[in-house]
Amino acid sequence: MDFLLKEGERLDDLQISGLKIIQSPSGFCFGMDAVLLSGFVRAKKNENILDLGTGSGILPLLLYAKTEALQIEGLEIDEESVLMARRSVAGNGISMEEGEERFIRLHKGDIKEASSIFGKGSFDIVTSNPPYMIAEHGITNPDYRKQVARHEVLCTFKDLARETALVLRPGGRFFLVHRPFRLAELLSQLVEERLEPKRLRFVHPHLDKEPNMVLVEAVKYGKSRMKIEPPLIVFNEDGSYTEELVRDYSF
Amino acid sequence: MDFLLKEGERLDDLQISGLKIIQSPSGFCFGMDAVLLSGFVRAKKNENILDLGTGSGILPLLLYAKTEALQIEGLEIDEESVLMARRSVAGNGISMEEGEERFIRLHKGDIKEASSIFGKGSFDIVTSNPPYMIAEHGITNPDYRKQVARHEVLCTFKDLARETALVLRPGGRFFLVHRPFRLAELLSQLVEERLEPKRLRFVHPHLDKEPNMVLVEAVKYGKSRMKIEPPLIVFNEDGSYTEELVRDYSF
Repeated sequence: MDFLLKEGERLDDLQISGLKIIQSPSGFCFGMDAVLLSGFVRAKKNENILDLGTGSGILPLLLYAKTEALQIEGLEIDEESVLMARRSVAGNGISMEEGEERFIRLHKGDIKEASSIFGKGSFDIVTSNPPYMIAEHGITNPDYRKQVARHEVLCTFKDLARETALVLRPGGRFFLVHRPFRLAELLSQLVEERLEPKRLRFVHPHLDKEPNMVLVEAVKYGKSRMKIEPPLIVFNEDGSYTEELVRDYSF
Repeated sequence: MDFLLKEGERLDDLQISGLKIIQSPSGFCFGMDAVLLSGFVRAKKNENILDLGTGSGILPLLLYAKTEALQIEGLEIDEESVLMARRSVAGNGISMEEGEERFIRLHKGDIKEASSIFGKGSFDIVTSNPPYMIAEHGITNPDYRKQVARHEVLCTFKDLARETALVLRPGGRFFLVHRPFRLAELLSQLVEERLEPKRLRFVHPHLDKEPNMVLVEAVKYGKSRMKIEPPLIVFNEDGSYTEELVRDYSF
């Protein structure tokens, strides 16, 4: 297949199932967080997935490769990103329409309206790699798109949790990646929305360092009892990736 | 000094500052959790500490050795434990009365009434090694004292968090140890009481195993931003204690 690239865009190899992605280096490029999140998601065959704030479509593409989910939908507020993500899906020869085949469909829209766009209780799984930073007043980032991806300018974690709880079916799962410094807030807001945190994994760059990411799985109406997995260490002492990262997260 | 031992009691060496403790093997004996918690507490000179659910007085004794806190108070509902703990304090030659000297004072009373016993805003620090398990209906543990120490029979975590928030001064700190499977509940109830979780450390028996304890520091009226420390690993591969445990937690 051919990928339609616009000026300033580049084509990156996802190093899984032969997939590629179009990215715009002047915008927000995906990082290790998206890759780790895609490896943390557990989806059964025939389940459907909604990725909230999908950006370049990185998570739908990785989940297409790593799961057997039939239907993967992505919601993104930035129109340019939606159009670019659709070109990535098309370029990879993946269906973009409901039918017998597995498909990825990308929608332009606001996370705060996800439940009215998709309907209540309509998904088995929601994923999100949301902005990590609280919006700060007075920031005048010349690159508005980067700011929206990094700071809660358009959507707070509370908005995300509320809409996720609405679009998930009872027993549906929410997988997200975030920064550990916000853990107390994340867990208490999830509990408030009855998205019970059930599985947590901290990602530490090195064994003796603080974690810089946390992966969370929450279950709609789940019982209050959670599991903290062993720490996921990214680098060996010699700077190479750890065996687990390579094996389970396909680095 | 002499320790007054009753039948069935034994005297254990705390292996720090020459301190000893009387324990009753038919009751609840302290474990690694109390020792790790005492090493996690950061107390400044002249601060006062209240230990809620102090049992045999293990935390007051360890905190007496590891901090410079002037005043250490313990609250325990089981009268026999209070009397035994007082014999330990006396045996160690530690003052039990307010005065110029550092002292440990032990009170018989209910955690649920801590704020009326001690007064609001009266402590810089609260510590607790509370029962980990939710009370189950129908348990008929022949040893009621063990059950009270392990299960939330007399006091839930919500009770503990509420009373802690009341007895702490603004900016005061709450240090506790608990089980990771209850983390979401713990953090959200702390947040609810405006005891903001600021520091968290998971204790893993081995590097590749799930944590079996979590140490938490919360600050009354603290800002919402927390730090997760590197994992505390207890055992090396060969079964010996790790260097950090020996060095920082005096194992």
